[in-house]
Amino acid sequence: MRALVFDNGLKYEPSYADPQVTPGECLVNVHLAGICSTDLQIVRGYMGYVGVLGHEMVGTVQAGSEEWLGKRVVCEINCVCRKCDMCQAGLANHCRNRTVMGIAGRDGCFADQVLVPERNLIEVPSAVADEQAVFIEPLAAAWQVVTQIPVDSKTRVLVLGSGRLGLLVAQVVNQLGCNLEVVGRNHKSLGLCERKHIQSRHVDEFIPRADRDLVVECTGSPAGLELALCAVRPRGTIALKSTYAGRGEIDLAPAVVNEVAIIGSRCGPFSKAIGSLLRREVDVQSMISRTFKIERAVEAIQAAADRNNIKVLLKINPS
Amino acid sequence: MRALVFDNGLKYEPSYADPQVTPGECLVNVHLAGICSTDLQIVRGYMGYVGVLGHEMVGTVQAGSEEWLGKRVVCEINCVCRKCDMCQAGLANHCRNRTVMGIAGRDGCFADQVLVPERNLIEVPSAVADEQAVFIEPLAAAWQVVTQIPVDSKTRVLVLGSGRLGLLVAQVVNQLGCNLEVVGRNHKSLGLCERKHIQSRHVDEFIPRADRDLVVECTGSPAGLELALCAVRPRGTIALKSTYAGRGEIDLAPAVVNEVAIIGSRCGPFSKAIGSLLRREVDVQSMISRTFKIERAVEAIQAAADRNNIKVLLKINPS
Repeated sequence: MRALVFDNGLKYEPSYADPQVTPGECLVNVHLAGICSTDLQIVRGYMGYVGVLGHEMVGTVQAGSEEWLGKRVVCEINCVCRKCDMCQAGLANHCRNRTVMGIAGRDGCFADQVLVPERNLIEVPSAVADEQAVFIEPLAAAWQVVTQIPVDSKTRVLVLGSGRLGLLVAQVVNQLGCNLEVVGRNHKSLGLCERKHIQSRHVDEFIPRADRDLVVECTGSPAGLELALCAVRPRGTIALKSTYAGRGEIDLAPAVVNEVAIIGSRCGPFSKAIGSLLRREVDVQSMISRTFKIERAVEAIQAAADRNNIKVLLKINPS
Repeated sequence: MRALVFDNGLKYEPSYADPQVTPGECLVNVHLAGICSTDLQIVRGYMGYVGVLGHEMVGTVQAGSEEWLGKRVVCEINCVCRKCDMCQAGLANHCRNRTVMGIAGRDGCFADQVLVPERNLIEVPSAVADEQAVFIEPLAAAWQVVTQIPVDSKTRVLVLGSGRLGLLVAQVVNQLGCNLEVVGRNHKSLGLCERKHIQSRHVDEFIPRADRDLVVECTGSPAGLELALCAVRPRGTIALKSTYAGRGEIDLAPAVVNEVAIIGSRCGPFSKAIGSLLRREVDVQSMISRTFKIERAVEAIQAAADRNNIKVLLKINPS
């Protein structure tokens, strides 16, 4: 099959070994896949991952359990053991023995087909188009912030970073009717916020005043956390969404002095993401900047790293 | 008066200007003062502070309000406005306009006398000796961890760092009957833990296994937070107590991936600290390594930076 592989370098493989279905797993024919900042970080060495890249996708089940055959699906990316202490404690996303699609120990979805444990499959309602469904995984990650940290109409929220994830977080948080501002670098993204009546500002015009109850850090850089520490009020909360390869230079003394809570936040509830797409609360299609065929996947990765693009998709086997 | 002053260098001043009492403030004659890691960091440039050092002390009120004259006192170090949003919200320790004794905008207690707002004074019960009372401020900071983060008999707690603050935190947490381990470098401190039946281990023999519910980071170095991130379980909590001058190189990706909560923690409740000294739950006197006269304060600061010493005190006007 065709696949984009990372193995000490990024390579498009026109004839990568076809995956073989095993009991409990289904083979999914990938329609459309999304490139995420985590993919870009993996290419820079994050997680030390080797294999087929990609963890955001929508497709159709092509082989495996009878029950799922022919269904249009998205899938939870954490493949878990259900036996370890974390799984037993109801924290399966933190399974000690997990593999993660396209991120750790398991091939991803930038390929014609991808193997997925049956219990990770979620059927996509027919009212949700492929171009929306491909955003379900990152939209769930955006929802995770508000499942971890309560936000209500009085909460002053700052989203730092107007990239792919920042825009999704902003739209989710905006539904809760809070006092919201988005600060970022990308003029196109900030324009998108304006059109959705979300207050936004270029980072060069932003003066942090230690007055936000919650800052969601989606910049993908250590400098983002330092700015977040200046923007959050004493005893406020920073949701940390950015992962990046390597160490960052950070002065954490303000976190101690101001008794700030920094909460790491990763994958989230797919049901919430699907619900907000069905209710049309979140507009994801406006975020699509470019779509590439799988054969041009290396170029697509480069395009995703360009700040002028928001979301870059890979068209693999369109439905 | 005699004073230890930091102003672009550390200097013992035999005739520093005597402080003048103003309405609402009392002049406290200092008996005994304690050197804290924050003092050592200020000498390295932390906070950009200039003035008399010191914020841990016990003394007797010598001038000011009639009501307080002659009383033996300790004092809260944050001097607040009671008018700003933080004060109004009941978070006076985070007052926007605060000065902090010996740390920010206000002379400290490594001197014959120190000026203290009357409402910052707390009388020391006669059952608490000066050598114990001088620990009330850092002991309150140790208590702050458990006022912010619930700890019960099932909580697996790791205290990282067996210095001055680590030993106080360990003793406070140990009273709550949790599963506790202290990991540090100082053999004397670890021996002190053993004598108090607190499980302890040298850091070179510690293998982090991502299994602690709470890690209290008291090492005073960026490496401490990285080790804490390896030792805490997914969705666990790190209490961050260390402040240090300058930036540290830190890989925060594990905080995001494991959805760890990093909670900054600073000053705490004096009443809790006095209570645990009265009930003899915490032994502070065994932590005193050396006591210097104020004239030898520069040497005392050097001694406090030596890992072989735990607590170093300054004897100023003994009662």
